[in-house]
Order: sequence, then structure tokens, then C-alpha cells
Amino acid sequence: MGFAVLQQQFEWPVRVYYEDTDAAGIVYHANYLRYMERARTEWLRLLGFNQTKLAANEGVVFVITHSDVHYQRPARFDEELTVVNALKRLRHVSLDFDQRINDANGLEICRAHNVVACVDSERLRPRRIPEHMMRVFQGAN
Amino acid sequence: MGFAVLQQQFEWPVRVYYEDTDAAGIVYHANYLRYMERARTEWLRLLGFNQTKLAANEGVVFVITHSDVHYQRPARFDEELTVVNALKRLRHVSLDFDQRINDANGLEICRAHNVVACVDSERLRPRRIPEHMMRVFQGAN
Amino acid sequence: MGFAVLQQQFEWPVRVYYEDTDAAGIVYHANYLRYMERARTEWLRLLGFNQTKLAANEGVVFVITHSDVHYQRPARFDEELTVVNALKRLRHVSLDFDQRINDANGLEICRAHNVVACVDSERLRPRRIPEHMMRVFQGAN
Amino acid sequence: MGFAVLQQQFEWPVRVYYEDTDAAGIVYHANYLRYMERARTEWLRLLGFNQTKLAANEGVVFVITHSDVHYQRPARFDEELTVVNALKRLRHVSLDFDQRINDANGLEICRAHNVVACVDSERLRPRRIPEHMMRVFQGAN
Repeated sequence: MGFAVLQQQFEWPVRVYYEDTDAAGIVYHANYLRYMERARTEWLRLLGFNQTKLAANEGVVFVITHSDVHYQRPARFDEELTVVNALKRLRHVSLDFDQRINDANGLEICRAHNVVACVDSERLRPRRIPEHMMRVFQGAN
Repeated sequence: MGFAVLQQQFEWPVRVYYEDTDAAGIVYHANYLRYMERARTEWLRLLGFNQTKLAANEGVVFVITHSDVHYQRPARFDEELTVVNALKRLRHVSLDFDQRINDANGLEICRAHNVVACVDSERLRPRRIPEHMMRVFQGAN
Repeated sequence: MGFAVLQQQFEWPVRVYYEDTDAAGIVYHANYLRYMERARTEWLRLLGFNQTKLAANEGVVFVITHSDVHYQRPARFDEELTVVNALKRLRHVSLDFDQRINDANGLEICRAHNVVACVDSERLRPRRIPEHMMRVFQGAN
Repeated sequence: MGFAVLQQQFEWPVRVYYEDTDAAGIVYHANYLRYMERARTEWLRLLGFNQTKLAANEGVVFVITHSDVHYQRPARFDEELTVVNALKRLRHVSLDFDQRINDANGLEICRAHNVVACVDSERLRPRRIPEHMMRVFQGAN
């Protein structure tokens, strides 16, 4: 896999609503994974990729295969958070992301290493990332 | 529309987990609608209907078209609740449910009138409830 | 109860992410209630009210007591929706909202009448809306 | 930390409802973390611990600090899954769990290593697990 590690960084703001919190008064941990997926979706959109069309026209869907998440400090209702995406490695069939969620002061709420694989939309089996996407991902750094 | 109002009642237990609560220490209101849908799903299962097969083999999906929900008192983390379903009216294209959620003492947490319509799985357009389902729903009272 | 019906309208954009959809390919119905609450929260914020401070300093929390929701047509992954809030009635202990969710073409996805009550943060019992809030709500129309 | 690695195993059934799935037709990945927390909650309950009382009477809350999750194959609407908990390591301030989610045929859907820390309920700062809990956890193997 001769691809250089990509350096680009992408930021996406997230507001904490009541729906995101739990009775301990903090964001329910699994919801950080939702925030991270919103940011990956928005990064794809920024690069020009419409996931609905990718699925309908090319049978391409991206699914997460690995998440390694460290929860550092809790975020609370009403906080303004920022998800920071960095694509760390591009493979023929998957994308490796480092993602962090920071609070309004730049303090780290949590960070994760997330691997997202390309699969076919019918059977959800691994398939190569389409060439036109690879070119954009490679040019993105 | 000549069908009698159905009298049957079905109960389904629900436990409140952290994921269901919010920072006010109570069940997040929209989650009661989730509990109610779990109970409708289990009621269909009890009557012998597998929704995955209904969609795949007959193109039949049920979607909610109206919810009128009264929230009476809050439920909290760890409570054991019971969802009580009653099918109040059977139409050719929809089912009307009265649903209540009670706490372990039988006190009402919330109640709702929910209308669920039969649609085709492709375009989600209204369609008649299949005859074999109608017969079961009618016999159910 | 002598307050005039308020006329103001507030709009809040919402993007549909994977987390919001279900296996029928559409937004899971209970999630529209989440979108509506985000819009009420943002409307309070716009009027200068910080709910965290209201709870901590004044013991004031708002909880929903009634939702009457009509689901008109399904929204799908990636759609850009707009929640439109209108405060229809101001009472001493509650706020009545008409809320609609529209798609990017202005077509109605769903609409609801939602009643939100003021309660004390400790016991969640009904209490009067603080005077300083009433003045803002009344001036808002 | 001289504690033996615990060997006990605990199983908890989970049904996949519409609320758990997404537009790709499969369980939304973050929801597996919810299933795992339900199983940890039920394991604590089986051991005699009521988390509401632990928080109210002893100021003890458990929060997740690390999740390392491998998603193996997707689960779909209506599947019956089983969460299998094994407490792998007991520390003075945290619990290490290996958790797996299997489908009805025993095939692995996903597995995770989850670390849960004991914190005080006020400030959510690390604190020792109470002695009476340690004794039960140690006796549990």
C-alpha cells in the first residue's frame, strides 16, 4: 500500500443537546461515535461525494470496522464541541481516521482511531474503493 | 371500515438504561415512542408476523403516521416499565393503537394514540393491508 | 392566561445523518421529536436563555408534556431539513409550540403541536415561568 | 494490583428493533456500545448492585474510559443477539471487560475491550471502588 500518510485535517462543530446526554449529566459515551460519523460524512461531502448517489449508482457504502476510543473528560449539555478528522492512512479497501473531539477551550473530550471499509451496498462485502474516489483522497493531502 | 373496535391488550416490559435518560435525570421524551414501537413489533411477532419477511416477500412495511402523546410523569434510570398495547381500530390501510406506559406500581408514565399505516416497501406509498394479516387482526379480538 | 397568541417564527436547519435513519431507509419517527427539541433549545438560546444556568441558578427546567405529531412524508439520509418553530400560546406555567419540519423544497415532512411545561429542577413539579422569562417571551412577538 | 483475572461470564439477550438500525439496513455501529452497556448494567444488577442507590447513597458512578471495538459482521432488524460479558481484570479504580455480541447462530457480530472507571457522582473524578463491591467482584470468579 504505497500511499503516503495523509495530513489533511477537517473540523466540524457539534452542539450537545438533551438527547445526547444521560442521567449522569454528561454526553452518553456512544454518542461521541455519532459525532465522529457526522464529521466523516461532512468531510466526504466537502470532497464532493454524495453517499446516497454512491450507494445508488455505484453500489458503494462505507461501514466502520474498528473503533478504538479513549474518553478523556465528559462533555455536558449545551457545550459546543469540535470534531477534528485526520485521514491517517488510505488503503485500497479502507480509510483510517484519527478523530478527536475538543471542547470550546480546545481541551480533549475524547479521541479515536476509526477504520472505515468500503463494501458493496447489496451484500456488504469488502470491495475496492472506486478509482475516482482514490484520486480525490490522494489529492486531498 | 366496518370493523369492530378490537379489545385485545398486549403487554411488553421495558427496562430503562442510561442510554434512555437525559441530563434532567429522566427518560428522554422521544424514547417513549421507541418503547411503544418495540411493543408494536412484539405484538406483530406474537401474531406470527415477521416484518423482515413481510417486507422482502410481500413488499409490506408499516410506518407511523400520527402520534398523540401525553407525558404524565417522568420515568428514571433503572425503572421497569410496561408498555400496554390495545388495537382500537382496524382499517383497510392502517391500524390505530392506544398505548400506555406504566411504571412498576401501575402508575401511568405516558399514553399515546398511534396510527400506523401500511405502505409498499419500495416507494412507501399507502397500500392495503394484506388479507391474511386482516384475518389475523380481526380474529385477535 | 391573558396573553396574546405569539406570532414569531424561528427556523433551525437539521441535516439527516445515518444515526437518524432506520432500516426502512427513512428517518426513524421518534427522531423528528429530537429535531424539534433542538430547535426549541436554539430558540431559547437566541432569546438569551442558557438552560444550564436556568437549572443551576433558578432551579428552572422545561419538560415536554404533550406532543401531537403528524408524519406527512418520510425524510431520507443526507437531506437538509428545516425546523420551523412558532410559539402559539404563552401560559404562566407552559409554552405551546407549533413546529413543522420541511425538506429543502419546502415540502412538509411532519408537523407537531408541542406543549412544554416549566418545572422545578429538583422534583420536576410544575412551577411558574420566571417573570424575567415571561417578559422576554411576551416581547418576542 | 494482585487480583486474579476473573473468569466469570455473563450473557444478556438483545433484540434488534427499528430504532437500532440505519439506512444501510444494519444496526448502527454506535448502538452495539449501548447493547454492551445494558449487559454491564444487568451484570451489576445480578451481583446485587443498584446503580441508582450507589450514586445516591455512596456517590459512586461508573463511566467508560476506553472502548476498543471490532465490528465483524452486521446485524439486521429483528435479529436476536446475545451480549457476553467477561470481567478480565479488576483494579482498585476500574473494571476491564471483554464483551462480545453474537447472533442467534453464535457467530460473532462484534467484540470489544471496555474499561469502566469508578468516579464520584459530583465531580466525576476517579475514586476507589468501594470495598463491599470489591469483595463481590473478587468472589464472583
